[in-house]
Amino acid sequence: MKIQKYSDIQPTYFDSDIAKGVAGRVLIGKDDGADNFCMRVFELSKGGYTPRHSHDWEHEIFIYSGKGAVFNNGKWLNVESGYSIFIPRDEEHQLKNISDEPFLFVCLIPSGVSEL
Amino acid sequence: MKIQKYSDIQPTYFDSDIAKGVAGRVLIGKDDGADNFCMRVFELSKGGYTPRHSHDWEHEIFIYSGKGAVFNNGKWLNVESGYSIFIPRDEEHQLKNISDEPFLFVCLIPSGVSEL
Repeated sequence: MKIQKYSDIQPTYFDSDIAKGVAGRVLIGKDDGADNFCMRVFELSKGGYTPRHSHDWEHEIFIYSGKGAVFNNGKWLNVESGYSIFIPRDEEHQLKNISDEPFLFVCLIPSGVSEL
Repeated sequence: MKIQKYSDIQPTYFDSDIAKGVAGRVLIGKDDGADNFCMRVFELSKGGYTPRHSHDWEHEIFIYSGKGAVFNNGKWLNVESGYSIFIPRDEEHQLKNISDEPFLFVCLIPSGVSEL
């Protein structure tokens, strides 16, 4: 069993034109022997956003804290703490922070793709 | 894309000698086309606990809110909002609420086993 607090993990930062103000952490992955799926946490600072893209694997997301929006089929839909989002494979998506507070979400992916 | 608030889903309640004060909800599962892994949320009321058991599939858990403890190798270890827990297959485990407030955690399992 592996138990940890997300904030005790050193994040990887993403800051560019396509992904701004993003801190990513792998909580449970292949190094832990998790060979079916992988748990990450992403923290978006004020004004932060993830890339707008699609890929051939799904996301299962749970919003941990804060307020954000998810791009879906040409529209931005608001989400906040306590929401889940299922993004099927090959569906274009992007998440952004829409408040002054950090926006944090747990995002799971199947094994076999890049963990971060 | 499927977006929902966990509390908008009707829970399934478990209340017996082996699982007390547990409300379970499937957020993302096979009915959504999620064919690799399944996201559930469990809410343990004051004094609530899950069964102490083991099985041949893993859990990936993220504590959403509240304070609880997880049974691991003969000991109870405290966890709270922001902690993750990886429970490998065949490892005995149990979770319980240790505060007066509800204890909520997201718990993911691989596809192919009972979702709730």
